[in-house]
Order: sequence, then C-alpha cells, then structure tokens
Amino acid sequence: MGEVKHLCLVRFKEGVVVDDVLKGMTDLVAEMGMVKYFEWGQDVLNQEMLTQGFTHVFSLTFATADDLTAYMGHERHAAFAPTFMAALEKVLVIDFPVVIAKPPPTAAP
Amino acid sequence: MGEVKHLCLVRFKEGVVVDDVLKGMTDLVAEMGMVKYFEWGQDVLNQEMLTQGFTHVFSLTFATADDLTAYMGHERHAAFAPTFMAALEKVLVIDFPVVIAKPPPTAAP
Repeated sequence: MGEVKHLCLVRFKEGVVVDDVLKGMTDLVAEMGMVKYFEWGQDVLNQEMLTQGFTHVFSLTFATADDLTAYMGHERHAAFAPTFMAALEKVLVIDFPVVIAKPPPTAAP
Repeated sequence: MGEVKHLCLVRFKEGVVVDDVLKGMTDLVAEMGMVKYFEWGQDVLNQEMLTQGFTHVFSLTFATADDLTAYMGHERHAAFAPTFMAALEKVLVIDFPVVIAKPPPTAAP
C-alpha cells in the first residue's frame, strides 16, 4: 500500500552501449536505499505502431511518494542523470501510485 | 524468472467514465487465470513534456510468454478489447521479459 512507481520508457541513441548504461543505473540504484525495487526490460513486440519507437522500460518502485522525491533530489541521481539522458533518443516518464487490482499469488498465505 | 509484462500506457477520450473501463478490465483479469498480477495507476507528474500526454498505466504480469500469448488470444480478451480501444485517445504497448535488477526486500528470507 502506498507504493509509488517511477516508470521510464526510452529509446537509446544508435551506437550507445546499453549494457554500460544499465550497469550505471543498477549501481546507482543499489546504492540508494530508498529504491525498494528496480526492474527493467526490453520490448519484444517490435511493432512501432504499438511501441511508438520505445524499446526499453525501467521501473523503480518506492514505498512512499517521499522516497521517490528523495531519490529524484539526491546528488547521486543528479550526477548520473546527464549520462543517462545523453544516451537517449526519446524518453517518456510517468509516476503513479500503484493500485493492485489483482494481487500476485505469492502474496497469499 | 521468466516473467513477462504486458505494459499499456493510455490516454482516455474526454467524457469516458474511467471507472467503468477499469471495472471491465478488473473483471476480465479476475476471470483469466493466466494473468498472475495486475496493477495500474494514474500519472501524478502531469507534465506533458515527460508523459507525452499519457495518463494511465496498466501492467499485466504473466509467469511465461506462453501465458501472455494465451491471454491475448483468449475470446474474453477479444470480447473486451473493442470496448477498451474505443475509450482511448492514444495507446502505447510494450511487452517485455522482466529483468529484476534490485529485488524487493520482501523477497529476502
């Protein structure tokens, strides 16, 4: 309850070594205690009409909106952001309080 | 391991009763055993430059890519899809195998 997600969809510039960017992001998140959960993935649809050209999803979960604010304002985030942004051809960001409409079976006793 | 997400970002048409659409989707997902987890949320950034006009996120998690394929091809999904699509001004879909870069603390023993 009360969880907030910071969802980031991107398309990398041609020539960018995505693994390097991912390593930078994973290292950053590992250091940042207020990030509860970090998952990412690469689109497999590959249908421009549906994906609108975005190829990667990064999803950060925070226990509270305050934790997200603390993350966004943290100096380590500020230090990494320019490197990340420079690698992107396009980006879309949405922050949202998570509503669980169907809980995962593992949440059951 | 092996989980796949079906991520759907949308902006509803003006006048659409979002709660009705959500109820339809929640009912559908509740009936569909192959959907492991369903969460959604409404953007709180409200910054067009970042969100590109998308306002809602729907995230369906499947244990395997086969489960996602079964969901997409199911007659109940086919029956609901036109109602859903008719409510949308814009939509973006990305399917991706989930890579967990920082596991949630609850996953620890």
